[in-house]
Amino acid sequence: MSLSKNNLKLITSLQQKKYRQKHNLFIAEGIKVVNELLNSSIGVAHIFSTDENFNVSKEVEITIISDNELKKISTLKNPNKVLGLFKIPKAKEILNDSFIVALDEVNDPGNLGTIIRLCDWFGVTELVCSKNTVDCYNQKVVQSTMGSLIRVNISYVDLPEFLTNTKLPVFTADMDGENVYKTDLPKKAVLVMGNEANGISEEISEIVKHKLTIPRFGDIQQTESLNVATATAILLSEFKRGLK
Amino acid sequence: MSLSKNNLKLITSLQQKKYRQKHNLFIAEGIKVVNELLNSSIGVAHIFSTDENFNVSKEVEITIISDNELKKISTLKNPNKVLGLFKIPKAKEILNDSFIVALDEVNDPGNLGTIIRLCDWFGVTELVCSKNTVDCYNQKVVQSTMGSLIRVNISYVDLPEFLTNTKLPVFTADMDGENVYKTDLPKKAVLVMGNEANGISEEISEIVKHKLTIPRFGDIQQTESLNVATATAILLSEFKRGLK
Repeated sequence: MSLSKNNLKLITSLQQKKYRQKHNLFIAEGIKVVNELLNSSIGVAHIFSTDENFNVSKEVEITIISDNELKKISTLKNPNKVLGLFKIPKAKEILNDSFIVALDEVNDPGNLGTIIRLCDWFGVTELVCSKNTVDCYNQKVVQSTMGSLIRVNISYVDLPEFLTNTKLPVFTADMDGENVYKTDLPKKAVLVMGNEANGISEEISEIVKHKLTIPRFGDIQQTESLNVATATAILLSEFKRGLK
Repeated sequence: MSLSKNNLKLITSLQQKKYRQKHNLFIAEGIKVVNELLNSSIGVAHIFSTDENFNVSKEVEITIISDNELKKISTLKNPNKVLGLFKIPKAKEILNDSFIVALDEVNDPGNLGTIIRLCDWFGVTELVCSKNTVDCYNQKVVQSTMGSLIRVNISYVDLPEFLTNTKLPVFTADMDGENVYKTDLPKKAVLVMGNEANGISEEISEIVKHKLTIPRFGDIQQTESLNVATATAILLSEFKRGLK
């Protein structure tokens, strides 16, 4: 067997969101990530492997390819033996009676991947994203979440509408908010985090009632704001620290 | 004026640590970062700018270059008008009577950059790195710290020796440590964070007395460990939260 032209074309196209949506497929690479997905409820469409002995317990079509063929279809610097095409699962209904993280136009795949891992770590199963947030089936997100992608329910919604309709209290990070270390935080809430350069949009800002500040100890005039992923880490830790 | 062959060669060589050390110079790019460095105590060697009106208050050699020349010397996807060569400052003595973050073989420039910004945010002026930690004058680190590099004193040392000799209590993150949310933390301490894949080395682990765990709320069997930068964010927040 070897890689057909059609498969090469299909896999390359899946690096773009519109083709992922058209084919309802996404790419995962490397033995570890592919195995985690194979052992999950995510459906698998096709496995390409340079190793004839790659062990797939599920019934699935496997094509054995050469190292050079893997290089052609991989987006990794160091491709690792196997690339799988998986089916994008249908989003489950959002559990409204829980703790929810919401993202308003987070653009960087690395930041989204880190936030998905943080949600998984802190037992947050609901991640709600504005439609202009980077796609969670982007291959950089898939690789950086290391399997957490399976355990967090990610929904892309009209975020202003969602926040207007939720009965949960809505929080965000803001330079002029309440000191997070001195605020009583509820167990169930929505925490909205914003875009890397601009924070949350004005429209969202008008909806959010509770603004939290992570106090700054360094020189107030000079220190840059925290990166969105590290700010999310600190705020999630504050919401959850009373529960352990 | 335009870019000489010698300058092109010099600037390209500075992308490697050994040439930064040989010439005692590092690169910074973009109007914002270059201006922050120009306004600091860091010495400047040379500015290359595509904009004749780029305003430098200090007395410094400026070469006006073309957009194409800037592209040749820039490591950014979108070069931003100006590139500066700055002098690597002498490391100041480590303030031993303070709060210190120590890094054991952190390899990723993005992680080091994020940790430098976190130190700046939390008022930590002392960052001590093992000699095999990535160089803080690596251009990716310089660009991602956005000026925090100036305000944090970064020293590369023999880390086991440093930790053996310090009189401060030494903490690290560990899966089997004490719940950080239930531990009384001192104001002055050393917090050691480890390599992305392997954590802290065995040698360091034997020296560190206090091991802290960030409790995990997700599925304990499956969730991956936190990224070193997000774990540092949460632990620094815990050490500092009582002080604001």
